[in-house]
Amino acid sequence: MLRRWIVLAAPLALAACQKTETPDQAQTRMQTESDAAKAAISTVATQYGVHLTANHPDSLAEYFTDNGIIMPPGAPAVTGKAAIRTWLAANGLPPGATITIQTVDVTANGPLAVERGTYAFSMPAQGRTPAMNNAGKYLNHWHRVNDKWLIAAQIWSDDVPMPPMPPAPARHN
Amino acid sequence: MLRRWIVLAAPLALAACQKTETPDQAQTRMQTESDAAKAAISTVATQYGVHLTANHPDSLAEYFTDNGIIMPPGAPAVTGKAAIRTWLAANGLPPGATITIQTVDVTANGPLAVERGTYAFSMPAQGRTPAMNNAGKYLNHWHRVNDKWLIAAQIWSDDVPMPPMPPAPARHN
Repeated sequence: MLRRWIVLAAPLALAACQKTETPDQAQTRMQTESDAAKAAISTVATQYGVHLTANHPDSLAEYFTDNGIIMPPGAPAVTGKAAIRTWLAANGLPPGATITIQTVDVTANGPLAVERGTYAFSMPAQGRTPAMNNAGKYLNHWHRVNDKWLIAAQIWSDDVPMPPMPPAPARHN
Repeated sequence: MLRRWIVLAAPLALAACQKTETPDQAQTRMQTESDAAKAAISTVATQYGVHLTANHPDSLAEYFTDNGIIMPPGAPAVTGKAAIRTWLAANGLPPGATITIQTVDVTANGPLAVERGTYAFSMPAQGRTPAMNNAGKYLNHWHRVNDKWLIAAQIWSDDVPMPPMPPAPARHN
C-alpha cells in the first residue's frame, strides 16, 4: 500500500517542475522562445531605425543596458549609455538621410538573445553632395531585463565601402 | 499514514529535478556557464587567430556551423561553411601580416553564447607598402553542438579606417 502511494506521488511532483532537459527538448523550447523574441525584438529594432533617422540620441540611448556597447566601423567601441548618447549625438545621420532596419534572425535562450539583421541607408543628392545609398548588416546582443529587451552590444558594417559622410550639423537644443 | 508518505515523497521527487528558476537563480547559473564558456571559447578564438595569420581557410571554415555567417566590413555577408572557406581563401591576410585575437567577454546560456573581443593587426613595411597596424573589435554568436562551440555568426570592424589592402598572392596548392 505504501509503495503504491509513493509511485503515485512521485510523477505528480515531477509534473509540477521541470526535469533537466534533453538536447531535443532544449532545442524545441529555444525555438519557441526565439520566435517570441523575434516578434518582440523586430518591433523594437524598427523603432530604433525611426529614431536613427530622426536623430534622437536621447531616445536611442534608452535601447541599451547601462553598460551597453556600440562598436562602430572605423572607430573604437563606445561603452555605457551616457557615452553612447554622446557618440550618437556627434555621429547622427545627415539631414534628409533615412535608415530602415530589418530583423532577419533571432536566437534566444531565456534572457539572452542574438539578433542578426540588415539595414538600408538612403540619402538624396544635396548641393554638391551626390546621392548615397548603401546596405549593411548587424548583430545585436540583447538582454531581457524586467520583460524588456535591451541591447548589451551592437556592431554593424556597410556592404560597400562608403566615402566619408559630411559632418552632421551642430545641434541647438 | 498515507498523507505522511505523500508529503515525504514529493520533496524527494522535486530534489531530483529542477524547478522553474527565479531570475536570481538564472543569473547565478548563467554566470557559471558564461565563465566556463569564456574559458573554452577564448582558447578556440586564439587558435582561430593563429589560422588567420597562417592563411588556412580550410581550418578556419571548420570553426563555423554548417549555416554559419561572416559579415565582413565593406562586403556583403557570406553564408555557409563552403562559401566562408572560399571567401577566406580570396581575402586572406597579406604575407608577413599577423593578427592576434583576444576574448573580452562571453555571455552564455546553455548552448547559446555571445563573445565580444578585440584583435590587433600588424604588417611590417614591404617594398613600397608601408607598415600597417590597426586594432578592431568583433562579436561572435556561438552555438554549442555536441560539446563543441561553433560560430553561427561573426562580425568585426577596424578601430581606424584602413586603406585597401594589397591583394593576397595567388595560392598554389
